[in-house]
Amino acid sequence: MVNHQERLNRTFAALVDPTRRAMLARLERDEGGATVSELAEPFAIKLPAVMKHLDVLDEAGLITRSKRGRVVTVRLSPKPMKEAMEWLHRYERFWSDRLDRLAAYVERQEKEARRKPR
Amino acid sequence: MVNHQERLNRTFAALVDPTRRAMLARLERDEGGATVSELAEPFAIKLPAVMKHLDVLDEAGLITRSKRGRVVTVRLSPKPMKEAMEWLHRYERFWSDRLDRLAAYVERQEKEARRKPR
Repeated sequence: MVNHQERLNRTFAALVDPTRRAMLARLERDEGGATVSELAEPFAIKLPAVMKHLDVLDEAGLITRSKRGRVVTVRLSPKPMKEAMEWLHRYERFWSDRLDRLAAYVERQEKEARRKPR
Repeated sequence: MVNHQERLNRTFAALVDPTRRAMLARLERDEGGATVSELAEPFAIKLPAVMKHLDVLDEAGLITRSKRGRVVTVRLSPKPMKEAMEWLHRYERFWSDRLDRLAAYVERQEKEARRKPR
């Protein structure tokens, strides 16, 4: 249980930063992963800042890094996001309930309209 | 777009803390909401700390607070979680792809087994 909470803490903390979210989105599009410089390219931040973001993502288990010569390839490892989604899922009934109520309301209004004399 | 990113920042930041997640889970069970002292009860933290957590949740739009006399009732307002889930959804294909591959593998193994002479 503690581990589960600990993992959720780290996953949500990793997702707080928009640069890190953009990096994950970039990795989501590239099946084969991306190099560190490819990942850094769209952002106006220096390499040490990029490396710090990658460390946070790595500690949260959201990426893997593999080195070949001097090139580090980063790949997405989205399993922790599954846990985060499962945590969020229980709240889903709130917005689906609301949609159900809306559908019921529309249906009642339509019945009402049909019943009225023209 | 900026607003959307801003909202995601705040939602994920609110969800980082396990006490805040536990408060949201408590509110999820209670349709009618909970008073501040009811919410505080399970935690070994002082009232100012509780109020700080509620401020973070409120700023993220995850709760609403209404006052009647001296009693503040807190209610869940889970809409921002929907956006967070929608953000996470795009990664879902990764684990469902994996399940598809597993199903295909099991199917192949079964075919193989059937083909073998007994």
